[in-house]
Amino acid sequence: MPPHPWLVKIEMKTEKKIHFREDILAQPSSLEFFVKEASKEVGGVAKRILQKKPGFVYLVGRGSSENAGRYGQYVLGAEAGFPVMLGNPSLFTKYKKPIKFGNAVVMAISQSGESPDILTVVEEAKHQKCFSLAITSNSSPLSEIADATIDIRTKDSSIPASKTYLNSLAAIAMLASKLAGRLQLEEELKSVPDLLFKALDSESETKEIAPWWCKGKAALVLSRGYNYSTAHEIALKLKELSYILAHPYSAAEFLHGPIAVIEEGFPVLIVAAEGALLADLIPLAKRVIEEGARLLVISNGKIEDWRAQEKNKSCHLLEFPSSPEWLSPLLAVVPGQFLALHGALSLGLDPDSPRRLQKVTKTG
Amino acid sequence: MPPHPWLVKIEMKTEKKIHFREDILAQPSSLEFFVKEASKEVGGVAKRILQKKPGFVYLVGRGSSENAGRYGQYVLGAEAGFPVMLGNPSLFTKYKKPIKFGNAVVMAISQSGESPDILTVVEEAKHQKCFSLAITSNSSPLSEIADATIDIRTKDSSIPASKTYLNSLAAIAMLASKLAGRLQLEEELKSVPDLLFKALDSESETKEIAPWWCKGKAALVLSRGYNYSTAHEIALKLKELSYILAHPYSAAEFLHGPIAVIEEGFPVLIVAAEGALLADLIPLAKRVIEEGARLLVISNGKIEDWRAQEKNKSCHLLEFPSSPEWLSPLLAVVPGQFLALHGALSLGLDPDSPRRLQKVTKTG
Repeated sequence: MPPHPWLVKIEMKTEKKIHFREDILAQPSSLEFFVKEASKEVGGVAKRILQKKPGFVYLVGRGSSENAGRYGQYVLGAEAGFPVMLGNPSLFTKYKKPIKFGNAVVMAISQSGESPDILTVVEEAKHQKCFSLAITSNSSPLSEIADATIDIRTKDSSIPASKTYLNSLAAIAMLASKLAGRLQLEEELKSVPDLLFKALDSESETKEIAPWWCKGKAALVLSRGYNYSTAHEIALKLKELSYILAHPYSAAEFLHGPIAVIEEGFPVLIVAAEGALLADLIPLAKRVIEEGARLLVISNGKIEDWRAQEKNKSCHLLEFPSSPEWLSPLLAVVPGQFLALHGALSLGLDPDSPRRLQKVTKTG
Repeated sequence: MPPHPWLVKIEMKTEKKIHFREDILAQPSSLEFFVKEASKEVGGVAKRILQKKPGFVYLVGRGSSENAGRYGQYVLGAEAGFPVMLGNPSLFTKYKKPIKFGNAVVMAISQSGESPDILTVVEEAKHQKCFSLAITSNSSPLSEIADATIDIRTKDSSIPASKTYLNSLAAIAMLASKLAGRLQLEEELKSVPDLLFKALDSESETKEIAPWWCKGKAALVLSRGYNYSTAHEIALKLKELSYILAHPYSAAEFLHGPIAVIEEGFPVLIVAAEGALLADLIPLAKRVIEEGARLLVISNGKIEDWRAQEKNKSCHLLEFPSSPEWLSPLLAVVPGQFLALHGALSLGLDPDSPRRLQKVTKTG
């Protein structure tokens, strides 16, 4: 079989900069800029939301933006007590039977701010006189129709999202801190750009491990809680860049069925941040190792234990810097971004031309 | 490599009944029993819910039960205007930071009624004086603590769920019809057991197609709207029974990234019921065919078009009986159940002993 035309060997373009890699490396500075500049704007949005006394948040987004929304489910839930629902745009766009928002706040996340389904939901929110917040770039079509916008203050130069994902997480984290009225949380957030810079150190180790782990058509990415969002985002990067059908799964759901698929050599990635779930993820990792999986762990806790496992050659560890658990999704995703990048390169794929994807995907 | 001990060749046990198959075949009668018997009970529950004037439904379930909940997002949303949120139990069990339910109704779906995380959420609902409804078997621990129960009136004899999934869908469908105050919907539901009986006819065709489609470690199952639940449930059956890492995806989300993974011969299943989304799923199917995927379609609409494609050998069709779209998830799942069953058999696996799964999975 002749090679597919999109299988552009990376050797052909070593002189060329890789945009996705440049974006990853620029994340600490774009995040720092957001954290410094956006505080007053987010404070104003939080005040307006609190005045509405909302019963819940109806959140819509696609791809990486929906994954940022998954983070919102945990951080807005745990820190501010808000129920956050991931919405179903087709009820609005296809069935023309919108739900009754009642006392909800509608939150729309979109790096482009152009997807028609997201715009339709926000238009319906206005129709129902329900407060709508956009997390997007200022001057996008979404920003123009929403009642308020948090400007994410960055754009990606590559098709797969990275900087915009990080800043969307930061927007949600800052909003949670303002809604909860806990200044200490925002102080913690300010420490993240430096930690994120340190997280970039994982590249060289990831580069070595990627060819070992990125084999086969399918993989599982497991986590739970705050980093359930990270599992979804890393799985999406692996699909977009390495064309590996990486299936994100809650570690709890995993035991209710999908564990059946594990067999000798099957690639499994576990995102295990220090915090409330680490104690559950360690036995899960052991179980997966016993079943013969090719296990890769992204962790910042119990490092010595993981390193001992690594010496037994039963798994590999990619470490990221220590942080409070609620902020770990902003760091844990980085080794996963590098994994997708170097997985793609090791497979001879071009990270800057993911086949069949465009910068702006418009779905109705 | 010696064969794994769990690779019990089906030839060794042709005399034995397959419990999962027996369960599938018993679905029309167990559904009929539910639809006949449960109406008054569900009517009473609906009245109590309407008295509370809830702002949204907070729904928890695991595995097939969560997939039934996904159906609830569409049917309770479209027919009764209720926002339905799929909950995050770890906020309650692991972080000990429960969200504020406010004027929500908590709905817990569980065939066993024993999973500790589900029970914890319902206990917190009681603590917050929030009305809780269980869709489970009477006399299960969940039923004992919830404010109200809809008894699903059946049990599965095999580990992977089928009858209980169907009756959970029916419970939600009947509840939607009562909440919307539309008797006509309940009349339509009464026609489903007969249609479900006809849907069993798909077995012989599925048996022929399963060895063709169930190849490789990974697959994609696409749909949108009402049958997004069906995509999730069929993908779960494929994982449990055939050990294929079948990844369910919303057809809209699919274009935002995962489409990159498709290549020559990659197995894709599209669930395309007659209704609001069929017009979108047909071009998606054509796109997937162009990319060289091995496409299987489960549909009850535009049958001649699909059959024409089938003649071109670009896809295979599994047909299910015509029905109103809102009830199609109760029918479309059947060819998928047969696919997982006969896929497993064609791969020499034992459908009654899915490796590493138990009847009751308890997660915290």
